[in-house]
Amino acid sequence: MSIVVVGSVAYDTIETTRGGVADTLGGSATYFAVASRFFTPVSIVAVVGSDFRPEDRQLLHERNIDLRGLEQRSGSTFRWRGRYHEDMNIRDTLDLKLNVFESFAPDLLPDLQRSDYLFLGNIAPDLQERVLEQVPSPKLVAADTMNHWIADTRADLLRLLPRLDILTLNDEEARLLSGEHNLVKAGRAVLKLGPKTVLVKRGEYGAIQFSQAGMFAVPAYPLEEVVDPTGAGDAFAGGLIGYLARSGKVDESRLRTGAVYGSVLASFVVEKFGLGRLVDLTWEEIDLRYRAFIDLIDSHHSRWISQ
Amino acid sequence: MSIVVVGSVAYDTIETTRGGVADTLGGSATYFAVASRFFTPVSIVAVVGSDFRPEDRQLLHERNIDLRGLEQRSGSTFRWRGRYHEDMNIRDTLDLKLNVFESFAPDLLPDLQRSDYLFLGNIAPDLQERVLEQVPSPKLVAADTMNHWIADTRADLLRLLPRLDILTLNDEEARLLSGEHNLVKAGRAVLKLGPKTVLVKRGEYGAIQFSQAGMFAVPAYPLEEVVDPTGAGDAFAGGLIGYLARSGKVDESRLRTGAVYGSVLASFVVEKFGLGRLVDLTWEEIDLRYRAFIDLIDSHHSRWISQ
Repeated sequence: MSIVVVGSVAYDTIETTRGGVADTLGGSATYFAVASRFFTPVSIVAVVGSDFRPEDRQLLHERNIDLRGLEQRSGSTFRWRGRYHEDMNIRDTLDLKLNVFESFAPDLLPDLQRSDYLFLGNIAPDLQERVLEQVPSPKLVAADTMNHWIADTRADLLRLLPRLDILTLNDEEARLLSGEHNLVKAGRAVLKLGPKTVLVKRGEYGAIQFSQAGMFAVPAYPLEEVVDPTGAGDAFAGGLIGYLARSGKVDESRLRTGAVYGSVLASFVVEKFGLGRLVDLTWEEIDLRYRAFIDLIDSHHSRWISQ
Repeated sequence: MSIVVVGSVAYDTIETTRGGVADTLGGSATYFAVASRFFTPVSIVAVVGSDFRPEDRQLLHERNIDLRGLEQRSGSTFRWRGRYHEDMNIRDTLDLKLNVFESFAPDLLPDLQRSDYLFLGNIAPDLQERVLEQVPSPKLVAADTMNHWIADTRADLLRLLPRLDILTLNDEEARLLSGEHNLVKAGRAVLKLGPKTVLVKRGEYGAIQFSQAGMFAVPAYPLEEVVDPTGAGDAFAGGLIGYLARSGKVDESRLRTGAVYGSVLASFVVEKFGLGRLVDLTWEEIDLRYRAFIDLIDSHHSRWISQ
């Protein structure tokens, strides 16, 4: 089953305590697609400017990502500049220029409207809804959101939530959306707003997935070196939704396995700046870390892998 | 198999955002013993002052904790006063009076010297070593430590570490002891200092256990309400060592199951002030939360419990 992801394709300038990188290919749709393509075909629906580099288009194309929905317009590509603190869970946005993204109004090609799996990346909830209107019978709809939309377009977001199978957001956003400081109360309150599953991302502390079946807590894979957390949340979603689309069925067991694959993909992203680690990643590396991850969290230590 | 715990028995005055409590029974040996007694008989070796309340002695005695090694001297019992921040991982010590604990020099009764399981609570490493000298052939020795001992008595601590099966410490202490900021590097570096297993406690973010077999990451049980984190680390150790002593054998699988029981015991402690939740806890409640915990972290969602 193929996936359509709608979101941003951007040029990021990133500083962390480990160094920096300028005008590197990024954006929520990009990270999601580059992660999920390991599991299933994926199509990006987004907009870029006339400055979008042919080699970046080529890079995505070579990784079997369908770019027919990547509109190119005159103007500049969305640009973000940010700096991470020593505690990489915290970052400051130093500059943000929406550019051509400001007037983004996604329209899906007819064959993409028949998609079964849909990921609505972090864009305005009314745009997410606009996309959803074009896809009459999806099998699964997942969406990401952020503090800005929660604070400024709450009504739009609340209208969208009951139509979602999965909502992903971070711990602060779950608190903001629910008004509950305690994370368990916050997760359960967001679940009551309509999504069937709520994935609360906690950066280096992993994630907690809330559903009717209960809670699933998954740690972040402990790494010796974290270089740049940009895109980790979208790569997590790419691993999760990619796995679900590949398996063609959604149940609690698959949602949990998917969250492990999400953690695995996110753990690779942070090892290098930008997309650096994801673009050359192999399925063998993913499989090896998946096994190491299962060993990491297996309380019975069944030792089905040797280390 | 029975356990001997050497550590503090104290009166604590605690403030959290949820309220406070004055002069309540606490101390590392107390929390450890009240948690581990669910698994196996436990003996406390500690010192209290002439102000130690008969009802507190009675409370421990009624929970089958052996108090023959609880020395009572003229003077005051160890007193600690602390305040937790909104982020309960952070606390300030407002006042600390060692009192009779200042001249504590533990001497074990002959039958306690034949103990198989030994927990050296958070006291000076030379005192921990003194206890170890009195126990010629333990099956398992575990110890806790803190920033104060790492900074001020590092040589004593480094001498002790190779004699430990398990060292427990928190993330900041692991960083201080190893000089490594990254937690994976820190845990592995501490492992190289001698302990067979290193348990790094991360408060509300759970724990990571390092051993030759690899890493085991366990989340904290997500609670709707956290009232007072005091004693959670010692109760964790009580659940872990208690389970190991009960099973009579130590291997990677049992260390992992033990860490889950540790997390379970710690999750109860924080629900009320001081020992409030632990003293009336039943085995049925522990067993129920253990099952819920396994469900929480089971990536295959085998659903051997119904919720």
